[in-house]
Amino acid sequence: MKLAVIGVGLIGGSFALALREAGKVSRVVGAGRSRTNLELARERRIIDEIAPDAASAARGADLVLLAAPVAQLPQLFAAIAPSLGGDALLTDAGSTKRDVIAAARGALGQKLAQFVPAHPVAGAEQSGAAAASAALFRERRVVLTPLAENPPQAVQRVEDVWRACGARVTRLDAEEHDALLAAVSHLPHLLAYALVHDIAARENAEQLFAYAAGGFRDFTRIASSHPEMWRDICLANRDRLLGELARYRAQLGRLEQLLQAADGAALERVFAEARAARNRWLKSSS
Amino acid sequence: MKLAVIGVGLIGGSFALALREAGKVSRVVGAGRSRTNLELARERRIIDEIAPDAASAARGADLVLLAAPVAQLPQLFAAIAPSLGGDALLTDAGSTKRDVIAAARGALGQKLAQFVPAHPVAGAEQSGAAAASAALFRERRVVLTPLAENPPQAVQRVEDVWRACGARVTRLDAEEHDALLAAVSHLPHLLAYALVHDIAARENAEQLFAYAAGGFRDFTRIASSHPEMWRDICLANRDRLLGELARYRAQLGRLEQLLQAADGAALERVFAEARAARNRWLKSSS
Repeated sequence: MKLAVIGVGLIGGSFALALREAGKVSRVVGAGRSRTNLELARERRIIDEIAPDAASAARGADLVLLAAPVAQLPQLFAAIAPSLGGDALLTDAGSTKRDVIAAARGALGQKLAQFVPAHPVAGAEQSGAAAASAALFRERRVVLTPLAENPPQAVQRVEDVWRACGARVTRLDAEEHDALLAAVSHLPHLLAYALVHDIAARENAEQLFAYAAGGFRDFTRIASSHPEMWRDICLANRDRLLGELARYRAQLGRLEQLLQAADGAALERVFAEARAARNRWLKSSS
Repeated sequence: MKLAVIGVGLIGGSFALALREAGKVSRVVGAGRSRTNLELARERRIIDEIAPDAASAARGADLVLLAAPVAQLPQLFAAIAPSLGGDALLTDAGSTKRDVIAAARGALGQKLAQFVPAHPVAGAEQSGAAAASAALFRERRVVLTPLAENPPQAVQRVEDVWRACGARVTRLDAEEHDALLAAVSHLPHLLAYALVHDIAARENAEQLFAYAAGGFRDFTRIASSHPEMWRDICLANRDRLLGELARYRAQLGRLEQLLQAADGAALERVFAEARAARNRWLKSSS
């Protein structure tokens, strides 16, 4: 099988490495914006060949993965549509799905049915081919949000490929996907960025950071994520994210009232319920 | 040296274990609210002896550590004041310092000069004697907020004890301590509790948690912290925490505006500045 990866970063590079390790691909072609990154990907044997552009990479490929920030997907769909083979499968790794599907509908024409949208829920705050790892998707969740136009066997083949990477694959409606991820992924990223940005902007930022410890480090780990990627996600899922943000700000307003009233019993109840819920989740997901 | 630990939990237990390992204590007496926890501490050889109450534990001790949630410190100061030896040193592990110092001033009388306030900035989301470890304070920061009444040699002796635990000891004014920690510790705990609580309260909580991944797990790690301890910290540092919370809510309001305006360039700038600041901090603190 010949694989084309458009965007050979953490996700795209890890996908290629995992499929290579699983013996599922014989040749990998990569394309992307950064020549330096592509050369590193070739040195690391993530890809065999650097294509001059996305359309060339897709030509003759059996499977094409789009793993660029989601705002680039409309133009990438348009670029590869003419060169995508009639039997080729196309999938993506975007963290938002409604916008990606709309872009595919606008650009792929008769080849729309070959596109099976996917989201590997397995990021890391590192980025680029340097961070790619064959193990990234192992035991991690990959969500497929199939189109009505997808033949069942196309969805199954894309599912099989992600399973070969070690992932646990589930299927969701795209609307539902974007709503769920806004709450448990997109909002937390925004909150972490907001905290670090606010502290970094202060006159005594250096002193504040000097007293930050392990709790702060873990809370803000996702604030080291790729800014462009997260800009695109926030914009693509803007309506859902705004809804979650409003909800969270209201929740903080309630906690502020409890603090102002020095209502220790109610605060402790909130904390205890949160701890219990988190610990139940950890237990069920381990 | 005979050590008395009032509250043999994660912090108190780790302090005893670290000083034992460093050969600084010959005998450790423990007191606390939970008999089960104290018995576990004795089984784990964290303490040699269970005292019936705090006053008995303090009697004859060379060093007394108060490691109970901060709201209990006023009554503990009052309880041990009569039995504290004239040459004994007293320290604490409270995450807030102004309230603890005020409580000491109200209860210790002529023995106030023997109390050197301390805050080991080294928590973990586990709690109890079961979680105690001799390594907890290694390379971690301990802040002393000495009183004007403390003889310099008393401060130095308490500093030496924490250094023997492996900690890096610094000194701060209590006001400054509480302001800094509100921003980089107390607020993040509140934010993490708020997010988990909000998600747990929804009808589709189970499904939401099912799609939460590593970013969510790290962001919310501190929401598994001890609810009573954090209730006390929030109340003790209420004014500072309310200030930080208002500031953070305003920051979220600005991000909401950027999102509403779909201002991708400004969002990316915020994210990039946050990432750069966090990465500088990680580099400087490693």
